Amino acid sequence: MYPQRANLPEALANRREKLSKLVDFPVILWSGSPLSRNFRANVYPFRASSHFLYFAGWGLENAAICLEAGKLELFIDAPLPSSTLWHGETPTPSAIAETIGADAVYPLSELSSKAAGAATIPVQDISTYQQQCDILGRFLPPADKLQGIDLVLAEAIVKLRSHHDAAALAEIKQAANCSIEAHLAGIRASRTSTTEAEVRAAMERVILAQQMTCAYNSIVTTHGEILHSDRYHHSLQPGDLLLADVGAENSMGWASDITRTFPVSGKFSPTQREIYQIVLAAHDDCIAKIRPGVEYRDLHLLAGEVITQGLVDLGILKGKVANLLARDAHALFFPHGVGHLLGLDVHDMEDLGDLVGYQAGRTRSDRFGLCYLRLDRPLETGMVVTIEPGLYQVPAILNDPDKRAKYQDAVNWERLAQFSDVRGIRIEDDVLVTNIGAEVLTAKLPTTIEAMEGNG
Amino acid sequence: MYPQRANLPEALANRREKLSKLVDFPVILWSGSPLSRNFRANVYPFRASSHFLYFAGWGLENAAICLEAGKLELFIDAPLPSSTLWHGETPTPSAIAETIGADAVYPLSELSSKAAGAATIPVQDISTYQQQCDILGRFLPPADKLQGIDLVLAEAIVKLRSHHDAAALAEIKQAANCSIEAHLAGIRASRTSTTEAEVRAAMERVILAQQMTCAYNSIVTTHGEILHSDRYHHSLQPGDLLLADVGAENSMGWASDITRTFPVSGKFSPTQREIYQIVLAAHDDCIAKIRPGVEYRDLHLLAGEVITQGLVDLGILKGKVANLLARDAHALFFPHGVGHLLGLDVHDMEDLGDLVGYQAGRTRSDRFGLCYLRLDRPLETGMVVTIEPGLYQVPAILNDPDKRAKYQDAVNWERLAQFSDVRGIRIEDDVLVTNIGAEVLTAKLPTTIEAMEGNG
Ligand SMILES: [Mn+2]
Ligand SMILES: [Mn+2]
Repeated sequence: MYPQRANLPEALANRREKLSKLVDFPVILWSGSPLSRNFRANVYPFRASSHFLYFAGWGLENAAICLEAGKLELFIDAPLPSSTLWHGETPTPSAIAETIGADAVYPLSELSSKAAGAATIPVQDISTYQQQCDILGRFLPPADKLQGIDLVLAEAIVKLRSHHDAAALAEIKQAANCSIEAHLAGIRASRTSTTEAEVRAAMERVILAQQMTCAYNSIVTTHGEILHSDRYHHSLQPGDLLLADVGAENSMGWASDITRTFPVSGKFSPTQREIYQIVLAAHDDCIAKIRPGVEYRDLHLLAGEVITQGLVDLGILKGKVANLLARDAHALFFPHGVGHLLGLDVHDMEDLGDLVGYQAGRTRSDRFGLCYLRLDRPLETGMVVTIEPGLYQVPAILNDPDKRAKYQDAVNWERLAQFSDVRGIRIEDDVLVTNIGAEVLTAKLPTTIEAMEGNG
Repeated sequence: MYPQRANLPEALANRREKLSKLVDFPVILWSGSPLSRNFRANVYPFRASSHFLYFAGWGLENAAICLEAGKLELFIDAPLPSSTLWHGETPTPSAIAETIGADAVYPLSELSSKAAGAATIPVQDISTYQQQCDILGRFLPPADKLQGIDLVLAEAIVKLRSHHDAAALAEIKQAANCSIEAHLAGIRASRTSTTEAEVRAAMERVILAQQMTCAYNSIVTTHGEILHSDRYHHSLQPGDLLLADVGAENSMGWASDITRTFPVSGKFSPTQREIYQIVLAAHDDCIAKIRPGVEYRDLHLLAGEVITQGLVDLGILKGKVANLLARDAHALFFPHGVGHLLGLDVHDMEDLGDLVGYQAGRTRSDRFGLCYLRLDRPLETGMVVTIEPGLYQVPAILNDPDKRAKYQDAVNWERLAQFSDVRGIRIEDDVLVTNIGAEVLTAKLPTTIEAMEGNG
């Protein structure tokens, strides 16, 4: 139960030090409390607030930290004597304080003495959120609509958490390595499984066996065109592609996020192969462009361009690539952003809204091809982003009468019909922006046609 | 996504019919809403309120039902057009209504027109709980402290849900069969695994592969004496026993709950074998006694007696069995109740508190040997209970100075020390009370020494 990390106190002190240069008021961060499932004692596995985790380094339940001028004070109650019977020996508050390098530790009842002038970020669970309001003595707006010192704090946290330190990178790499093994197991399992559920189970088994958890609800589906498919009931048919978007979160709460799409039979059809190669080219071209200073939005546009060019080459789209892009014709087949920041959250800091992904002065476009873009900032060293272009035939888009009318001349619908065995393909990797370019943290999991046709 | 159940409308109509004989006011039950993990869009897998599930038969998100005089009205909003892009085609409200046999379906905004004089049960998630209070226009106490018509409703629901109909039993059996396979996989995996986590992963893989989920957080530990151990970090050593308390919940929300304890090496030590046989005898003797009219409390006392006799025979306890029982000496080693009701919840209806487990006029004992008993009612046909005696060496109990003083003469501490390789053993099955006795729903999973030494 102790985080087994060398230099955890030093890493945390370093984060506090940086924070203290950005804010001159006390900060209180709450970890949150377990959420009940069907009755109070039956809880979902606890996951502490990411902002708390970033500065506390330990997913403690019902705890808070106060950060001020580089100091760390921990607020947590000692376990009840009766809890030893049910949960065994658990660390004392002072042992916890020592492990994370806290300067002092107090029971939670002392927290209100720190409340004056303190900023915070509201957590996800409502009961802790109510405690936050109570103790601070003021109403807290949702985390994506903060004001005053809370907004200043959020901006500071975005600065810090956008650039990963060595300790964070080690965690993300650990999670990524587990995800790689899960995907290899998934490819292997798909060759002999009869349902999506069996492949999902084989993949999540790897994650559980390494004492990790899923960073998000896995997508494992033959219907890749259902972008957030969260069911696993389809049977696997020989001609199917299976899209698996599965990522581990390690014991310290750090995420990874990988998608691979592979043929259940071990062999792409010619049409599947054509489309796969377009998505792979978009993926590779985006990653090749990554370096500090590059606009993430330009990567998104590049993916759109590669996809458009590929579809023109196949005769599915008609006309000049530049014109098609200007009309957002690519978004008919690529209706999401090319990726997002990754860290303690799979969509890192998404609780804070577009403050995270959109540079000051920039707002989301309402263009069909850009509205889903989660990140519109120049890349900086230390960022970890996903690159995840995809190509889908979404009935809700392609059968929409307005879209069909608008893009009637842009699409060769007869030609498109020949690709009906390609419902959805996505390829996603996690990429660190380095001084000199990019390091693909998930590179050990191949993306080639050959690898997807192999046995994991 | 549609529940694939023949006669679902009939089964639900039957439950409403029975309810209408017990309450003469309208009832509104809410399903609840998904709970966020680290940011809003990253949710825990949704699990509808059990009371809603019992009468609605479908784990719908953000829905409510109104029950009155045998009629079923469904309140749910149509999916947003944009949700089709992310989630694919989802059933319309009228298709849902038809599947569950609702008499009418309305958008949620209509629900307030039904609020006057309606009773409810508060759900677990606070945001839906706040909606409940808002729409009913009154404060709702916690579900275990209801008053007025809500209490009358809770009592009626306890009557109904305590006795399972044929539809419910079919669901519980499906969940139990999956759990049996998971345990067989766990025994098999333990022979080659190096950590608790690997065995847990092998077991939960079976549950996920069958499109089910865990009814509760699995316990898979070599430290069975930590009664609610929820971590999986210990390595497996050749002399270890592994205690696995793992149960599937099927797609309709029905639970199962099985514990087996087996030697990692495939071979019990002589001391482990002695203790295992005591627990098994308690388990078998309790199940043999089950029939309508038998007091569940007497089964608990019987388990205590068998355990006490066994420990006296081994020379671990000293004195007369009756005297030792009167002094609660058995509770030193068996510090929990012998089981609980099972249904949609693994501890069925535990949200309603001791209203469920304790017959009117009975309250929890404060005796060391009885205070954890969850069920103190005469058994009735149609109940499903767990029988789960156990024998543990809990340091928090056995090293407690008060307990050591009190039981100084009752325990042969030197003899006990010879059993140090037995930290915790529990054997748990799910048992249906029938007209003529008992049906062990989990009987296909053996409990014998030979089976625990085999390869699953
Ligand atoms: Mn992603
Ligand atoms: Mn149980």
